[in-house]
Amino acid sequence: MTSKDPLLVVRAYHDRWTAKDFGAAIGLLAPDLAVEVPINAYPTRDSFGEALARFGTTVKTTDMISELRADDEVMLLYDMDTEQLGRVRVAEHFTVKSGQIIRIRQIHDTWPMRAAGMGQD
Amino acid sequence: MTSKDPLLVVRAYHDRWTAKDFGAAIGLLAPDLAVEVPINAYPTRDSFGEALARFGTTVKTTDMISELRADDEVMLLYDMDTEQLGRVRVAEHFTVKSGQIIRIRQIHDTWPMRAAGMGQD
Repeated sequence: MTSKDPLLVVRAYHDRWTAKDFGAAIGLLAPDLAVEVPINAYPTRDSFGEALARFGTTVKTTDMISELRADDEVMLLYDMDTEQLGRVRVAEHFTVKSGQIIRIRQIHDTWPMRAAGMGQD
Repeated sequence: MTSKDPLLVVRAYHDRWTAKDFGAAIGLLAPDLAVEVPINAYPTRDSFGEALARFGTTVKTTDMISELRADDEVMLLYDMDTEQLGRVRVAEHFTVKSGQIIRIRQIHDTWPMRAAGMGQD
C-alpha cells in the first residue's frame, strides 16, 4: 500500500482494523501520531495501537455513513456494532502527511463506555 | 442569502446560530428536517429550532477545527465553550438540498449533558 492519497490511506486504515488486521492498520500511523479522544489518553502510537487492537477485537460490524476529504484532512462517519457497548456512532477526523496518518481525532459518546466501566478518566 | 452551495449554506447556518440570530439560522432548515442526535429527540424542525435557541444562548464561543464537503454533504468539527457544560467537541454532519439543510447529524459526548441533568433519555 504505497498510495499517498489521504482518502485512500484512511480507507486502508479503516478497512484493515475493521478486518482485525491491526498490524497493517497500525503501520499506516506515523511514529509521532497525535491522538485526541474523548475518554482515556494515548500519548504514543504504541499505546493507541494497543487500544485499537483490544477494542477493535470487540467490534462486530461497521456501517459507513459518510467519507469527506479536503486537502490533507479526511473525516469518516460510521456506526459500529460492538459486543460490549451495542451500537456506537463515531466521527473520526484524520490528518495525513506523506501517506501516513499523523493525527486522529475521535468524536463519540462516552456514556456507553463509562456505564461499562471502561473509562479511566 | 440565496446561495445553494452546500458549504456556504452550512457556514451561514453556523454563523447565524453562533451569533444568536436563531431565526435566520432556522430559516436555513428545510420544513421536513431530519435530526439525528445522541441525546433527546427532535422530530420536527420547530422542536429542533426551540432546542437550538435554548441551548445556543448558553454557548459563549465556538472554535472551528475543520470544514469538509463532498457533493451535498458537509461536516463541521468544532469546539464550543458553554456556560453550563464547559468545553464540548462537536462533529456535525449536514445534508443540503436546494439551499436548505434537510438532515443534521450531531456527534458529541453526552456525558456532560447527563451529568448536568439535561438528558431526557
